[in-house]
Amino acid sequence: MLRLGHRPERDKRITTHVCLTARALGCDKVVVVERDDRVVEGVRDVVKRFGGPFDVESGVPFRPFLKDASVTKVHLTMYGLPMQQVVPHIDRSRDLLVIVGAEKVPREVYELSDFNVAVGNQPHSEVAALALFLYALRGDAAFDKVFSGQIEVQPSAKGKVVRPQEDGSGE
Amino acid sequence: MLRLGHRPERDKRITTHVCLTARALGCDKVVVVERDDRVVEGVRDVVKRFGGPFDVESGVPFRPFLKDASVTKVHLTMYGLPMQQVVPHIDRSRDLLVIVGAEKVPREVYELSDFNVAVGNQPHSEVAALALFLYALRGDAAFDKVFSGQIEVQPSAKGKVVRPQEDGSGE
Repeated sequence: MLRLGHRPERDKRITTHVCLTARALGCDKVVVVERDDRVVEGVRDVVKRFGGPFDVESGVPFRPFLKDASVTKVHLTMYGLPMQQVVPHIDRSRDLLVIVGAEKVPREVYELSDFNVAVGNQPHSEVAALALFLYALRGDAAFDKVFSGQIEVQPSAKGKVVRPQEDGSGE
Repeated sequence: MLRLGHRPERDKRITTHVCLTARALGCDKVVVVERDDRVVEGVRDVVKRFGGPFDVESGVPFRPFLKDASVTKVHLTMYGLPMQQVVPHIDRSRDLLVIVGAEKVPREVYELSDFNVAVGNQPHSEVAALALFLYALRGDAAFDKVFSGQIEVQPSAKGKVVRPQEDGSGE
């Protein structure tokens, strides 16, 4: 996943949520174009505690990603074509790069993406758009990734149950 | 939808995204427990431009909502039971209150909710959790609400196409 247009002061928490959503729904890696060490540290701390594999880095130019012909590039934007219409045309046998912008996205992102996809044509949230797109693409399988971290949450009807994993090494 | 645990400085943008996601996926109203006039103004501005009906208010005590027996109360929490397991048991003929907390949620929210629902048992984002829950509950119908605002986005493969609605009154 490629995160673009991050403004360190304003977007720290939104970009962190974007990264954690990508991780929880099975993405392998997030690249944040604009450098923000605090976001990277925060996400790596979650990976350390709750498990990986999941990579995050920031301060990486985006154009090489947009020009990589070996991956399918999906840009999420409220101006795109409806997710429901596009998803059946995405080749699941290829690697996928999902591009999530903030308020201003350069024109070339629209042009170089294979698909500009709208998760609804109403303004809402890049966090919600990413989550809904990944879920529409993969269904419940989006939640199938097994994480091996120091702690694991146990589903519970009324409380909070957290236990250390049996191999609590974090690896 | 009830938003709880909002910290005005830290959560302004996350809570705004929660509200806009609720609007885009068909909720009628959001109540933010902690008062934040800037969040309310920002969301109302989107409603004015992109359409309603959608209400938002802040600074409203949450206990009366939790004690309202006439609605089904669903609390989204990574500690809950899996969404996939709970959704089939939710009575769609009743009004629904979705409760979205921040980091600290009072114990009584767990106890008074009809369902504590986990959207995955990994930490990610209340914005993503809300979006995924509403989509799992309603499917593509979550996007069926017709908004009558001043502007409307037209789906497009490569660009941004926005037009004023024919009745551009915003009502």
